[in-house]
Amino acid sequence: MRQAEAAEGKKRKMSSSIAEPKALESKGLTAAVVTVSDSCAREERKDLSGPAVAEFLKKRGFQIVACEVVSDDQIKIQNMLVGLAEVAALVVTTGGTGIAPRDVTPEATRAVCERLLEGVAERMRSEGVRKTTLAALSRGVCGVRGKALILNLPGSPAGAVESLEGVVELIPHALKLLRGETEHS
Amino acid sequence: MRQAEAAEGKKRKMSSSIAEPKALESKGLTAAVVTVSDSCAREERKDLSGPAVAEFLKKRGFQIVACEVVSDDQIKIQNMLVGLAEVAALVVTTGGTGIAPRDVTPEATRAVCERLLEGVAERMRSEGVRKTTLAALSRGVCGVRGKALILNLPGSPAGAVESLEGVVELIPHALKLLRGETEHS
Amino acid sequence: MRQAEAAEGKKRKMSSSIAEPKALESKGLTAAVVTVSDSCAREERKDLSGPAVAEFLKKRGFQIVACEVVSDDQIKIQNMLVGLAEVAALVVTTGGTGIAPRDVTPEATRAVCERLLEGVAERMRSEGVRKTTLAALSRGVCGVRGKALILNLPGSPAGAVESLEGVVELIPHALKLLRGETEHS
Repeated sequence: MRQAEAAEGKKRKMSSSIAEPKALESKGLTAAVVTVSDSCAREERKDLSGPAVAEFLKKRGFQIVACEVVSDDQIKIQNMLVGLAEVAALVVTTGGTGIAPRDVTPEATRAVCERLLEGVAERMRSEGVRKTTLAALSRGVCGVRGKALILNLPGSPAGAVESLEGVVELIPHALKLLRGETEHS
Repeated sequence: MRQAEAAEGKKRKMSSSIAEPKALESKGLTAAVVTVSDSCAREERKDLSGPAVAEFLKKRGFQIVACEVVSDDQIKIQNMLVGLAEVAALVVTTGGTGIAPRDVTPEATRAVCERLLEGVAERMRSEGVRKTTLAALSRGVCGVRGKALILNLPGSPAGAVESLEGVVELIPHALKLLRGETEHS
Repeated sequence: MRQAEAAEGKKRKMSSSIAEPKALESKGLTAAVVTVSDSCAREERKDLSGPAVAEFLKKRGFQIVACEVVSDDQIKIQNMLVGLAEVAALVVTTGGTGIAPRDVTPEATRAVCERLLEGVAERMRSEGVRKTTLAALSRGVCGVRGKALILNLPGSPAGAVESLEGVVELIPHALKLLRGETEHS
């Protein structure tokens, strides 16, 4: 209950920077990018991963409706995801998927998703390890909240884009299924 | 409790179409096939996946003791699985593993299994993506209930058989382990 | 609470066979090996897997601070893991990862870990199936407890070493992250 209210507050605060949802929803391929990073949130470090992911998604036909930065705080991440899942078909996070104590993006994502797509996370890792074995340490998940897909990418610009490359072709089909556009037998 | 009773009722209702369990159990490789599909359950669509899976299993030496159809209703699926896990060593479902809101076969399977075999589901997907990347979206699980193995396959006849092909060689060994036939050190 | 006390008791009992923790911690790569096996615990069978794993880890630069044997009893395994995670950076188990009813090592490990590293378990299986398809049946997990990494290997000496080979290169990096030595952005 408190989470829903906080999300509502979040949505209101974000509304000025987000394109009108109704018009965008009809296009289907809307995306929001969230950089999860303490130092970026404190503006001590320039966010390179968020813009790299947004650029990549634009080239693949997505309309970017929000780019946000949030600190490694589970409740803040959850509220952000809840708000963005109402205005974008795809919500992509970058950062906070490692095993350091401050890494809580997967926990926040699990908490707000109704179901997980284990195969998408598996594929990000199995494709990722072709470049670096360390990709196996990513705890990123992919899940569904309402009709939105939420996807956790690693924090480095290269790692984030490489992981996304491994699964981006699945996303338009997944979003159609979530909207109920593909018949269910 | 209510679930067990419902399953008991299910078993009684199904008893006429199922071979005598005692005689079959000694052979070990007994299998039941469940098609999970609203349209097949309403008889609006002919079930092609169930027969395709049954045919494949027969060729691999399994004795098919039941072929059932159930709608995409989590409780109905659970009751069906509970009943069939008492008369077949292997219970295979086809359908309901996707991400559309009506897809609940994995949820039903998790609910009735004591433990999951993540590696079997991983292998179905990793083998499946060799044919179609969309196999990564399957949420199918594999789990153990008592001495039975329950396996979720996708809904299309081709997808179901391809996924099963990727793991069928594991099944006889897994069933032996469940019956305690392989020594435990 | 009772678990912590039991672990404390365990630690005290084990103290004579364990090297002084303070001195070792500074080196980072300390490891404990636990053989989970009823027959080894009853001394009816010689433990070959534990020594094989310890030997392999030594060659990779780990200092072995404990080698223990425990029966396939979930509470006993949990207490053992809790105690060892305080004296070793890496705790490796061998045995009890299968699907026989007595196999409970993954359950014990999940119970004492704060978070799981699904990608490490996936990689042990995906590398393992190159040698034997049966590696897909291993339910072994990898998780974090405090600053320690806990890793479940299969019970056979060959299977245990092969699974470890698939992920050993990840471990030093993972341990650094757990100690907070790599900056978090």
